[in-house]
Amino acid sequence: MTLTTQPDPEQTRAQARRRQILDAAAYCFAREGFHGTSIAALSQASGMSAGHIYHFFANKEAIIAALVERRLEQSLELVRQFENAEDVFQALIDRVDLGLNEKANLDHAALELEILAEAARNPRVAASVRAADRIKRDRLIGVLGRARQGLGRQADTADAEAVTELLMALFDGLMVRIVNHPDLDRAALAPLIRTALRTFIDGN
Amino acid sequence: MTLTTQPDPEQTRAQARRRQILDAAAYCFAREGFHGTSIAALSQASGMSAGHIYHFFANKEAIIAALVERRLEQSLELVRQFENAEDVFQALIDRVDLGLNEKANLDHAALELEILAEAARNPRVAASVRAADRIKRDRLIGVLGRARQGLGRQADTADAEAVTELLMALFDGLMVRIVNHPDLDRAALAPLIRTALRTFIDGN
Repeated sequence: MTLTTQPDPEQTRAQARRRQILDAAAYCFAREGFHGTSIAALSQASGMSAGHIYHFFANKEAIIAALVERRLEQSLELVRQFENAEDVFQALIDRVDLGLNEKANLDHAALELEILAEAARNPRVAASVRAADRIKRDRLIGVLGRARQGLGRQADTADAEAVTELLMALFDGLMVRIVNHPDLDRAALAPLIRTALRTFIDGN
Repeated sequence: MTLTTQPDPEQTRAQARRRQILDAAAYCFAREGFHGTSIAALSQASGMSAGHIYHFFANKEAIIAALVERRLEQSLELVRQFENAEDVFQALIDRVDLGLNEKANLDHAALELEILAEAARNPRVAASVRAADRIKRDRLIGVLGRARQGLGRQADTADAEAVTELLMALFDGLMVRIVNHPDLDRAALAPLIRTALRTFIDGN
């Protein structure tokens, strides 16, 4: 027990090493696929020994689970910005370009689609992907409710769930689109996504 | 040269065998991944020798290309229904459930996401996916124009392209959603998708 707020250098170092492995794994999984990436390749890409990698992660599935968790934390960071906004609806509208650029990005899509393809056939990866999605979705349903409250609209939980699902489909679909159509016109899409937000959050 | 319209039994048999390999490949790629599926596994799943498989397809990438082409043909079959409809907009509205059930299907999503993940890292698979997408997209832009014409709206090519992209993102996103959230409420989503079609095709 200590009263100092100084970070423990041992722990900081461990976190940095863990991050180093996850960065290398994100790179390798996107480029070679989950099954195409050996621990040896991961060791080379991260500059850490296989023994070190196994010290942090029991196996490759544990690495995917950690990547999913890291993605969730990044998403929740954005969700918190919405939750803390004075005008929640305006904050959503203002961040459309941010969401569009994040989702319609080939590197991002490559990793996400690889994780999803693995989740579609691997129950353990599916469980971690679905647990993360549930947390994110529930928070977004809350954000939608607060946005509507700010607009003076009645709360409608069933509709809020379906609308959140629809808007998640729209943003997630951008990952699929960018692989199919890398030259898609982001500047033309942004105002349409804002129209979708107005239609589904503020009502017809 | 022959004047008979009878199908050539040799050719019919060859087509059936080709289909048999593609069905087995679709099954294996979805369950084991593209790289996790050996020609030996494909041979077992299709009940055909490796030699026979190589007679039809030079390699696994050629099989993916054929699967992408088959998917395109199925999509164009639906596009033709829209093109031939008297009331194109109503035909789109009427087929929302069909599209929803097709996209929000775990087996379908497993194969599509595996192909997309491979396309994100393999230039040859990317080329075949993108060529198919281009054909489908151009036809759908045409369908959108005809739907708007039927509604008495002015043609606006730039907007038609962006709206088609947005609606494709929405439907493609359902594949991502079903993996993340297998219990999603289809019945609640369908009317929202129809609202999206009304908003973006018929205008605000």
